[in-house]
This record gives sequence, C-alpha cells and structure tokens, in this order.
Amino acid sequence: MSRALELAALGPVRGPNPQVGCVLLAPSSGDGVGRGAGTGRADDPRPRRVLGAGYHRGAGTPHAEAAALADARRRGANVRGATAVVTLEPCNHTGRTPPCAVALYDAGVAEVLHAVADPNPAATGGAAWLRGHGVRVEGGLRAPEGESLLRVWLTALRRGTPFVTLKTASSLDGYVAAADGSSRWITGAEARAHAHGIRAQVDAIVVGTGTVVADDPALTARERGVDGVVRLAEHQPLRVAVGRRDVPPTARLRGPGGELVQVRSHDVGEVLAALAGREVRHVLVEGGPVLSTAFLAADAVDELHAYVAPVLLGSGRRVVGDLGVRTVAAARRFRTVEVLRVGDDALTVSRWVR
Amino acid sequence: MSRALELAALGPVRGPNPQVGCVLLAPSSGDGVGRGAGTGRADDPRPRRVLGAGYHRGAGTPHAEAAALADARRRGANVRGATAVVTLEPCNHTGRTPPCAVALYDAGVAEVLHAVADPNPAATGGAAWLRGHGVRVEGGLRAPEGESLLRVWLTALRRGTPFVTLKTASSLDGYVAAADGSSRWITGAEARAHAHGIRAQVDAIVVGTGTVVADDPALTARERGVDGVVRLAEHQPLRVAVGRRDVPPTARLRGPGGELVQVRSHDVGEVLAALAGREVRHVLVEGGPVLSTAFLAADAVDELHAYVAPVLLGSGRRVVGDLGVRTVAAARRFRTVEVLRVGDDALTVSRWVR
Ligand SMILES: NC(=O)c1ccc[n+]([C@@H]2O[C@H](COP(=O)([O-])OP(=O)(O)OC[C@H]3O[C@@H](n4cnc5c(N)ncnc54)[C@H](OP(=O)(O)O)[C@@H]3O)[C@@H](O)[C@H]2O)c1
Ligand SMILES: NC(=O)c1ccc[n+]([C@@H]2O[C@H](COP(=O)([O-])OP(=O)(O)OC[C@H]3O[C@@H](n4cnc5c(N)ncnc54)[C@H](OP(=O)(O)O)[C@@H]3O)[C@@H](O)[C@H]2O)c1
Repeated sequence: MSRALELAALGPVRGPNPQVGCVLLAPSSGDGVGRGAGTGRADDPRPRRVLGAGYHRGAGTPHAEAAALADARRRGANVRGATAVVTLEPCNHTGRTPPCAVALYDAGVAEVLHAVADPNPAATGGAAWLRGHGVRVEGGLRAPEGESLLRVWLTALRRGTPFVTLKTASSLDGYVAAADGSSRWITGAEARAHAHGIRAQVDAIVVGTGTVVADDPALTARERGVDGVVRLAEHQPLRVAVGRRDVPPTARLRGPGGELVQVRSHDVGEVLAALAGREVRHVLVEGGPVLSTAFLAADAVDELHAYVAPVLLGSGRRVVGDLGVRTVAAARRFRTVEVLRVGDDALTVSRWVR
Repeated sequence: MSRALELAALGPVRGPNPQVGCVLLAPSSGDGVGRGAGTGRADDPRPRRVLGAGYHRGAGTPHAEAAALADARRRGANVRGATAVVTLEPCNHTGRTPPCAVALYDAGVAEVLHAVADPNPAATGGAAWLRGHGVRVEGGLRAPEGESLLRVWLTALRRGTPFVTLKTASSLDGYVAAADGSSRWITGAEARAHAHGIRAQVDAIVVGTGTVVADDPALTARERGVDGVVRLAEHQPLRVAVGRRDVPPTARLRGPGGELVQVRSHDVGEVLAALAGREVRHVLVEGGPVLSTAFLAADAVDELHAYVAPVLLGSGRRVVGDLGVRTVAAARRFRTVEVLRVGDDALTVSRWVR
C-alpha cells in the first residue's frame, strides 16, 4: 500500500478526478494461484512479487487499476490469482473508461485491498460487485494516509461543494495593511512566490471585488521554465470575483489567464454552489479581509495557509473581521499540519477541526 | 575557533559574565617554538596539536584562558610558543581572577587569535597589552559567530542597559484574549512549556501590574528533575512588576521564587536603568499588551519570541496596541532567526533590525 500511495501521489493534484495508485502482487507462495488465494493480510511478512503497477494521470486517461493491468501485460506477467492493492475502492462506473471492478475481475484478480471507499455516488459499489463475483475485498488499509492524500477530492464529493483553502498574509499582530492603507510589502518575496505556487494546484481562485478594485490582481498561475523565464502555466485556474460591483473593463482579471467568473452575491453558500456546478473541487480564497471573514464566519474554510511576517504594525486593516466569537472556547481553531519558514516569514498550514 | 566557540557555548547563558572558550594550539611544525612562531593564519591547512582547552563556567570560576592553561598543565603539555584561540579578547583586568593577558604571556604563548573585542571598559586593553609585550594578536576571526553567541552580553555592555527579549502568545489574527476576556488557552501546553524554558536563561522577568492582577503569575523558572518531578530551578530570575498599582499581598509573585522588584514607573528607560543597576544583562518581558506596546514603542525590544496559535478570534484583546505606525515602511520589522513548530503553534524567533 505504501507503493500504491506513492504512485497515487504522482497523479493530478487538481481536476475532477482523484489521485489513485494500484500495485498488483503475485499470489503469496504456497497459497496456490486460484481466486481467493493470498492471505489478504497487510502485515504478511513475506514479500510478494510485483506483477504490475500504475496510477491515474488525469481525466480521459486510464484509471490506476487499468494502468497496472496494462503494465503487467507489458511485462508478460500472469495476474490470475493476484492481489490488487489500490488506494481507492475500484469504481463500478462506465465513464470515459470501463469499470475497474470488471476489469480486475476479468483479468482473474483474486483479491482487492483498498484504503478508501469511493464516495462518488456514480462510481461506488465496486467492492460489493467484486464480492458478489467471488473476489475477496478488504477496505480501510492505511485509511488515514489514503484519506489525507485524497482529502480535497473526498471532501468535495462527500459534501457536494468545493474544498476551500484560505490564504492569508499578515503581520505578527494580524494586520494586512497599515493605517494609511499601504500593504506592500508585509510578507516577503519568497512568501508571495510560495503562495503563487499553490495556484497551479487549484481549480479556482476567489477574491472579493474589494481586492479586484484595490490591487488589480491577475490571479494567474505562473511557472518558471527550464530557461529561467517565468510564464503562464499551462493550466490556469478559474478566476472568480465575488461581489456586486462590476469588474472594471481594464482589470488584469480580464487579461490572459483562466476564465473570469463573477458571482454577484455575498452568500458564501451561493458562491460555492456556483463553483460546484462547474466541476470545481478545490478553491483558493485569496482575500481580502471582508471575503475571508465571510468564509470563516460560514465555517467554509477547510484548510488555512497563513503567512505571518516578523513585523508589528500596532494598527491598520485587520486580516479578519468579527466572527461572532465572544470567548476562546468558541474560537475558529485549526489543527496544524506543518509550520514552515518561507524567507523571513512563517507559514502555518492547518486544517479545520470539525 | 570552531572548537573554541563550541566550548564557549557550554558556559553560563545568564549572569554578569560572558560565554568564552579557549583552545591552545602547538606551534605549527617547522615554525620553531619561540615567541612569534605560528603562521597566524586561520586557514592554515596543517592541523595543529591541541595542547589544552577550556571555557568559562561562570562568575568566580577561572576564565577560559586560565582553564585552558590549567588543562595544558594537567596534560603535561608545553605551551611555549603556542597559539591561543579564544572567542573573546583576553581581559586586562584583575577581578575575581587575574588578567588573562598576563597569564597567557607568562605561560609563553606567542600568538593570540580572538573573535570579538572586549567592550567591557573595565576589562578591555588585553590585545594592546599583549602586543606591547611582543605577542602577535589578531582579532575578528569568525566575528559574526562570536558576536551571535555573545549578543546578549555584548548588547548589554555596549549599551549599558539589559538585552530585552519580548515574548508574545497570540492567535493568528493577533489576539491574546477573546472579547469576554477569556485567554485560556489560545496557545497550547507545549508552547507554554517552551516559553517557561526561556525563563531559566534570563536574569529578570518583567510584567505589567495589569498581568499581575489579572493572571497572578508566579514567574518562576521550573525544571523537571531526573525523577520526572517539576520543581523550582536552582537559579531564579528576578521578578519585576512594572506599574504604580501595588502588587497584592497575597500575589504568587511574593511566594517562592526570585526576588520581587517593583518599578513604579511607566517609563521603559527608567525600568531598564533600574535593572541595569542590579547587574541584569537579559530581561524577558512577558507582557501584557500594555507593557509590550510600551517596550516596542520605545524601540527597546532586541529579540522577539512570538508564539502564534492556529486560531482565529476576529475580535478581542490585541497582542500589541498602537505603535504610532501609519505606513508599512515605518513598521517594527524584525529579522527572523528561526521558525519552529511547537505543538500546534508556530514560534518565530526574530531580532530587531537597527
Ligand atoms: N494580505 C492578504 O492576504 C490580502 C489578500 C487580498 C487582499 N488584501 C487587501 O485587502 C484589501 C481589500 O479588502 P476588502 O476586504 O475590501 O476586499 P475583499 O474582501 O476582496 O472585497 C470585499 C468586497 O467583496 C464583496 N463581498 C463579497 N462577499 C461579501 C460578503 N459576504 N460580505 C460583504 N461583502 C462581500 C463586497 O463588494 P460589493 O460591494 O462589490 O458586493 C465587498 O466590498 C486590499 O487593500 C488588499 O490589498 C490583502
Ligand atoms: N498572551 C500573552 O502573551 C500575555 C502575556 C501576559 C498577559 N496577557 C494578558 O494580558 C492581560 C493584561 O493586560 P494589560 O495590558 O493590562 O497588562 P500589563 O501590560 O501587564 O499591565 C498594564 C499595566 O502596567 C502598568 N504600566 C507599566 N508600564 C506602562 C506604560 N508604559 N504605559 C501604561 N501603563 C503601564 C499600568 O499599570 P499601573 O496603573 O499599575 O501603573 C498598566 O495598567 C491579561 O488578561 C493577561 O492574561 C497575555
């Protein structure tokens, strides 16, 4: 399963499809080769030969199971009686590719071990279908790691709205601008570059019209080529402006980059529903304070990327406004995933504790 | 010099005396053994035999040079013509111990290489005295590392007031308490324990009377014994309450721990002068917000230890108040030394950029 998780992580971090990895193992020696062979024990100490392995490379390409079966065929390996170790329950759905459950069964796989059950209503049922056809199936192997890898996709599917990452950049005392409105620069160049790097991993970037008017951001994902030149990345996230004011005709948001969508609403639920309708699984909210506060107040933030500069302002524009919190026990508390130094700034990546 | 710096770091981190390390090296082979021998080049590729080494263990104990000479004697090594590599210029002052410059000369040392010049008016002049007596002296070797190691002591001596470390503990949006005044707990137990660990390294802990009244802190340095029991550390820093209100008769500040000093002033300069008069070299300001703001506004903070919890409050009591800063360019900006994860919190240690 470790190898399957590693393979999965090579897959697409954004888009409608999950990251999935699959490893096909030879039946354990002495167990025979018929269907039902293998001990099915994750802690089986005997190393088993790898017959094939693969991962899903993105919409329209083979699923991990199909990729692993193709790999085994290329190697001339016989997968009769094999065990398929896969990070996500094999799908039971004919989409752009045929159902993986059927493909595994047809190839003679005797056993399927998976980490996470498929919550996708259109694809679920693979495990039940396989069991009904005499294949041994066990789920929940290394489930925490599987869930962690797939958290964006799982959250979006289970809830029906996109996974929300909120980015903030502030002084140590919680300001995004000084009293005179100046905000360039509180955090450093490294932190800004680091934050831009996240853009290429999401489906949509969201800002309020206040930020559109004040900062005229382009909200593009850029990358540095092998020649050292920075240019637009191939994938450009949707650019979303939230608010009732018009986006100025000359705004950089209308220039090269992802499609511009305006959601003329102050309701976070409406914003997320509009984006869910466009197959958006992961949105990055880049502020400003009014929009960030609205997302936090609506308990709509799944992950927080907070860049904090070693700077004290003492007054100015606060990073978030009133959240209706009166006492510490009611605070919006996140669970830290990691703390990084980025240039002179600290980045805390944390997740919402439900 | 690397070894001398390592040795120095074993010395006392607090108290009136600096951390100093000394290594005595045999004359380089082929250079003869008379005074003036040795190449004096820090980058001399030929390793030279160590004749003795030592460091200063605190007031009343031998200085590093004396400790190294004693070490050489114990080993039966002849230090005639040797090079003394020492992190701080040898002193020229008869205090609780005789001058090190004289001791090195008397032992026949031919050359002295040091990192940092002694700024102590009572002790300086060692290099000049040695040169006057035919000893080759070179200063400034690995000076940045020497300065960094001795920064507290050097700052206190050069400026005549204690080195000030300010500790803050706040939410990501810069609050130390919620709107209802509750503040337990924003940062976690690990961060609180980590912050307590700093207390044993300072000469005085300073709080405002507001914190005395609100929190009734003991301000003691505690340590966990080998038996796992937490008890008062042997060294207890001075406990300092700043403000005009009386410290209540029942305050824990009056209980077991360091001596209690009250400075009935709102003037940061007066507070620091009062502490300098008591041989305090390093003070830790633990708040609250009013006192922290006063120290920051007076540009009196040398080092900042900011613990930031992955928590958003949106309103409440701010970690620092108005600093008279109107624009980002005028912000109090520190230079990051390190960013650490402490439990769920981020700790940024940073230094004031003058
Ligand atoms: N440091 C950072 O991380 C960061 C990031 C971005 C921006 N900023 C700074 O933030 C400043 C802009 O602040 P801002 O707070 O005005 O920007 P904002 O949050 O981007 O935009 C606020 C506007 O969004 C609309 N809006 C959308 N949802 C809303 C809701 N639920 N409630 C109320 N209004 C809603 C409203 O405009 P309509 O009237 O059009 O409806 C509102 O005026 C700029 O100075 C920028 O530099 C900082
Ligand atoms: N999270 C943290 O890091 C932290 C640390 C400590 C405290 N706290 C919290 O902070 C709260 C107490 O806040 P606070 O700001 O009142 O406490 P404070 O800063 O400890 O004390 C303020 C008092 O100190 C005196 N003072 C000293 N120098 C002053 C100056 N330059 N200007 C004005 N007054 C000066 C004044 O008292 P007189 O009237 O007596 O002169 C003033 O009322 C408590 O709730 C505590 O829990 C948080």
